[in-house]
Amino acid sequence: MTSPALQIALAHHRAWTGKNLDLAMSYLAEDVVCDAPSGRIQGIDVYREFLAPFAGQLLIRAELIAAFGDDSTALLMYDTETIPAKSAPAAECVTVSNGKIVYNRFVFDRTPFIAFSQQQAPVNE
Amino acid sequence: MTSPALQIALAHHRAWTGKNLDLAMSYLAEDVVCDAPSGRIQGIDVYREFLAPFAGQLLIRAELIAAFGDDSTALLMYDTETIPAKSAPAAECVTVSNGKIVYNRFVFDRTPFIAFSQQQAPVNE
Repeated sequence: MTSPALQIALAHHRAWTGKNLDLAMSYLAEDVVCDAPSGRIQGIDVYREFLAPFAGQLLIRAELIAAFGDDSTALLMYDTETIPAKSAPAAECVTVSNGKIVYNRFVFDRTPFIAFSQQQAPVNE
Repeated sequence: MTSPALQIALAHHRAWTGKNLDLAMSYLAEDVVCDAPSGRIQGIDVYREFLAPFAGQLLIRAELIAAFGDDSTALLMYDTETIPAKSAPAAECVTVSNGKIVYNRFVFDRTPFIAFSQQQAPVNE
């Protein structure tokens, strides 16, 4: 496995799924862009706000399903066990430039997380 | 690109996103298993029932984002433009054996599709 992009992507993945957000963020460019199911996230601070509640509060454990890459692109799929869902898989396709993740296309099913947040904060009737 | 699994996965992908379901199904094993957001799908007939409404009615076009593979595994991410959502990306991690897809881990966000189906068939109040 000699893909430089994959090495960075996996280092980032291991860090955040290991709940080390500071280390995870060190692999991101300051102006990272992430297209997530809820919309576009721009900048490392907003990315951290996006990831922190999931990594810190909802994630129990993660397991890599597959990971591939070339010079500039890495594609990962992994499953996560979370408080809202026993299995909540996700895929990330990241672009790496100068050793940092500059772009991430993030795919996962929001359904169990939306249901969970509605349980936590029920709508007033 | 010399991954046999990726060649099968891409042929399947091109066929169903080109709305040729018969050709797409020819790349699947009879006893294919697919873990999709809504649960496990078993057998080629049920797989076809799962894919047909999306490919036939909801899909406008698909665009590959990234695709990698090795001897037995292929990992694809693609975006789809659909009637419910302008951008509905998905990822598939398929296992290929004897030239057929025997397993697929399918990840996408159900949220826009659930909202669309609720609009189409509103719940009686």
